[in-house]
Amino acid sequence: MAAALSLNQPTSISTKLSFFSQNPSSILYRYGPNKPFFKTSISCSLHQRSRPEYVPGRISDPNYVRIFDTTLRDGEQSPGAALTSKEKLSIARQLAKLRVDIIEAGFPAASKDDFEAVKMIAKEVGNVVDEDGYVPVICGLSRCNEKDIKTVWEAVKYAKRPRINTFIATSDIHLEYKLRKTRQEVIEIARNMVKFARSFCLDVEFSSEDASRSNREFLYEILGEVIKAGASTLNITDTVGINMPNEFGKLIADIKANTPGVENVIISTHCQNDLGLSTANTIAGAVAGARQLEVTINGIGERAGNASLEEVVMAVKCRGDRTLGGLYTGINTRHIVMTSKMVEEYTGLYVQPHKAIVGANAFAHESGTYEIISPEDIGLEQSNADGIVLGKLSGHRALKDRLKELSYELDDEQLGIIFWRFKAEAETKKRITDADLIALVSDEVFQPELVWKLLDMQVTCGTLGLSTATVKLIGADGEEHVACAVGTGPVDSAYKAVDLIVKEPVTLLGYSMNAVTDGIDATATTRVLIRGYNNPTSTHAVTGETVQRTFSGAGAEMDIVVSSVKAYIEALNKMLGFQDQLKTKTSKERTIISA
Amino acid sequence: MAAALSLNQPTSISTKLSFFSQNPSSILYRYGPNKPFFKTSISCSLHQRSRPEYVPGRISDPNYVRIFDTTLRDGEQSPGAALTSKEKLSIARQLAKLRVDIIEAGFPAASKDDFEAVKMIAKEVGNVVDEDGYVPVICGLSRCNEKDIKTVWEAVKYAKRPRINTFIATSDIHLEYKLRKTRQEVIEIARNMVKFARSFCLDVEFSSEDASRSNREFLYEILGEVIKAGASTLNITDTVGINMPNEFGKLIADIKANTPGVENVIISTHCQNDLGLSTANTIAGAVAGARQLEVTINGIGERAGNASLEEVVMAVKCRGDRTLGGLYTGINTRHIVMTSKMVEEYTGLYVQPHKAIVGANAFAHESGTYEIISPEDIGLEQSNADGIVLGKLSGHRALKDRLKELSYELDDEQLGIIFWRFKAEAETKKRITDADLIALVSDEVFQPELVWKLLDMQVTCGTLGLSTATVKLIGADGEEHVACAVGTGPVDSAYKAVDLIVKEPVTLLGYSMNAVTDGIDATATTRVLIRGYNNPTSTHAVTGETVQRTFSGAGAEMDIVVSSVKAYIEALNKMLGFQDQLKTKTSKERTIISA
Repeated sequence: MAAALSLNQPTSISTKLSFFSQNPSSILYRYGPNKPFFKTSISCSLHQRSRPEYVPGRISDPNYVRIFDTTLRDGEQSPGAALTSKEKLSIARQLAKLRVDIIEAGFPAASKDDFEAVKMIAKEVGNVVDEDGYVPVICGLSRCNEKDIKTVWEAVKYAKRPRINTFIATSDIHLEYKLRKTRQEVIEIARNMVKFARSFCLDVEFSSEDASRSNREFLYEILGEVIKAGASTLNITDTVGINMPNEFGKLIADIKANTPGVENVIISTHCQNDLGLSTANTIAGAVAGARQLEVTINGIGERAGNASLEEVVMAVKCRGDRTLGGLYTGINTRHIVMTSKMVEEYTGLYVQPHKAIVGANAFAHESGTYEIISPEDIGLEQSNADGIVLGKLSGHRALKDRLKELSYELDDEQLGIIFWRFKAEAETKKRITDADLIALVSDEVFQPELVWKLLDMQVTCGTLGLSTATVKLIGADGEEHVACAVGTGPVDSAYKAVDLIVKEPVTLLGYSMNAVTDGIDATATTRVLIRGYNNPTSTHAVTGETVQRTFSGAGAEMDIVVSSVKAYIEALNKMLGFQDQLKTKTSKERTIISA
Repeated sequence: MAAALSLNQPTSISTKLSFFSQNPSSILYRYGPNKPFFKTSISCSLHQRSRPEYVPGRISDPNYVRIFDTTLRDGEQSPGAALTSKEKLSIARQLAKLRVDIIEAGFPAASKDDFEAVKMIAKEVGNVVDEDGYVPVICGLSRCNEKDIKTVWEAVKYAKRPRINTFIATSDIHLEYKLRKTRQEVIEIARNMVKFARSFCLDVEFSSEDASRSNREFLYEILGEVIKAGASTLNITDTVGINMPNEFGKLIADIKANTPGVENVIISTHCQNDLGLSTANTIAGAVAGARQLEVTINGIGERAGNASLEEVVMAVKCRGDRTLGGLYTGINTRHIVMTSKMVEEYTGLYVQPHKAIVGANAFAHESGTYEIISPEDIGLEQSNADGIVLGKLSGHRALKDRLKELSYELDDEQLGIIFWRFKAEAETKKRITDADLIALVSDEVFQPELVWKLLDMQVTCGTLGLSTATVKLIGADGEEHVACAVGTGPVDSAYKAVDLIVKEPVTLLGYSMNAVTDGIDATATTRVLIRGYNNPTSTHAVTGETVQRTFSGAGAEMDIVVSSVKAYIEALNKMLGFQDQLKTKTSKERTIISA
């Protein structure tokens, strides 16, 4: 934590902003060691309280609010945001640094990949107990059926604190059009499945999907039944994001007042953002008595996403004492910026410059009198006093240390590759920023199994309009292939040349590039999203509809054309790898869920 | 408006999504003519009520809420978002289509450019009265001094309904550190300046900056005084975005209960988004009695921006009747998507894919049971039944009509240029989308005065790492210059070649690219942000600090390298044009304000 600052006392801050991806200029000249930072009578509190011991259905301190992060489950369901297992593990490690109470690591029944990722996170993140006794609960989501629940258990049981989260819709519209069941049938299913989950696991959460549009009396009844069946957390979802804050607060208050046995469980919120009110609704829920808040990093998720962790946590931190009746969380907010950048990079879901807390412009203040959060409180600073950490004289050890600070734990071989590329980049530019390092790691380490690899390419383009590209790829069989093609631009011609070799028909759905801020010689990360014509389809867990899978790939190079080609080949490799996997599976379809 | 739908009755919708800039794939297969769309008992109301006649300090219908859009003033203050006068006019026209009640067109005292833009909007948008008698109020912001106020009046007086908005900070922290004045001095200034404004204009708004951190009793006193002095709208700002919704609602309720004379004026909200709560706070303000809501398109603005028009308006539309006591606005929501895209394009402030209402994924639903707003309600559809409107056989007339639908009113010469480029693009790709057209107009029409122009360029790049670029530019004097350079990538080498000719030292602060969705042969819009070493500095209106100006440029081409170079040259031209302008001015410094 930053040192406590006395009220109304200007003090100095020194902030470097290498992590912010846009317009840092407008920030840099505003901060400096000599600019005053005001802590006024209305600004954030800086003290951190201790975390009560974890017991599933009870919290010893009535003011403590649990943070349940579902970036890896609900967030990962966003179109094109699919993560590799390694990326998921890396994010889970970062979430543990943030000290989230519960990590929802995935929906294990969706596919073998999803199952394995949850299992790996349970084993590797769910067993690292720190000096204070903190270790995150590792949770998996299941529909209300025995197969899903058993699959979750098989994945999360390796964690020190495993949890099963099982959900079913409770609104009449979903009962009628999706489940095609009566209220009594749904109660019966929920009760039996919570009991079934309890036969494996002491810590069971029940999620009522579309609770905000459900009949109140029915809600009290089904929640009362699942409490009797052994659920210790009840999750109340505003699935379509339609509630106003006062409405959602009243929903939580009503449930607390009318559900039999509610005093023995924790009430949780899960608010979608369709009207831009998810953060306010989540906070209204906490004020009304919810003590678990389900959120995602950067607020990602299907449609308009979920309540964002950083907004909810900083609102509680800034206003918990004065306005929210003393509420507090156990989050180490100084890891917010890094976690945000990692999730942005891996999912490809970019954060807009004016996003609260973590947007590039969020701390572009005119002066300290406009500041309610100190940048260092969310980790907006370099750990190294020099600001930019590494240069061409930096050694293997310095690189390893910095990567570790960035929460990458790489083996020697991976480190060797990164070091080699780091040196190559450092030859051509003076300063290697953290953003450059993250891009390098993403490009080199977090790769799907290799099917095709780029060996060489050259491109000519310009106003003449006859862009021509030549690419040389090597296949899994070790054979080299060369092709050339003409296109409307350098990327188009290069992709056409790749297509001539790979011969896998795809539709390019999206092509984007990370904003570059450190001069044009910075590493540009490009990202593509494709869908193949021979693509597998799968069943959507909630709606039963057929869903076509899309694949994204990213490339990081100083040459944006080379970067674009590497991204395309990565996406192709992911797709081809998935097709191979499908062939070896019998009936394990990929399913995506929503709660 | 869409036809009214009966409750719980599935009906069909057909939606094309060419405007959404990311992952349309995941949307397209979900919608189709045969997918059901459910209007449930909890979803948006579709009927539109009439707009009460405009009278400054009074609204005949107590449920009607005025929408005050400050995209062109507060939004334009975002780092790097500076707009040209033509872009401002275009956005103002679009805001009139949206039917916003008040357009804050700028801060005329900031510079001659800003003054002229407000004047042009007052003349051209502030005099177009539609068949219902609607014409937007054109408002300009001023600090509490005679010169600012007079400057606003000279700009807005051409409008049919002009308004002067004058502001001063009221919190002790701002009085002490920024204004260095006592409370009584501030009351005196506010009273005198509102009187001064009233000597020109009947419609005067007074904005209390940092109201949420101001002493309540002082607030009642100063507001009571400005009412006596003739203000008809009182704007209450949560300038640092620190309020929780219940707090901000209470602030508005307290002001309504305790300010002498408040029954004769309209209370307004202005909520910043630092904790992600601006939409919720704005709505809480309306529920507590505010009848003017200050918002921006896409929620842009300094730091984390403002409450976003689309979120506030759709929340009122969806929940006004059921939850918000019958509140409604006069906004034509079917222009939301187009306005959002225009503002995104011109400011370069990209909207994240999970942004509520207008994000690319916002309508990527699994099924109708998850939908609370019908896409067509916000204009998420093609006006043409074929979806994609234009192709290579489309004529001059079709292009002109479509551009007019997109609210571009171009003269014949401009239309000729666009038509020529449209035909050239249509030769190489089958379908020209609305997004392509907007990019073309932005690239060709909304340009600064030409200093340098790209004639030709060629670039070679690839894995060899010796990217080489040759560029040929023509200067304002008509002389052609050619230079070549080697760089770390194709854009780097091309920029270096441009630098060799232009000889104007700049720092590249940002480089980004619009996401491309229609295949890799779509038009890629790149955007750069630069700051020159010889850059003029100016004084920040609020803080008195020195601010360095930055310049952005955009380029739209199918070849991303050519597009990047055009963006760079546009930014250079803007900067060089500004320097020229400065030389001819004596003391008119550029100032930026915040309220």
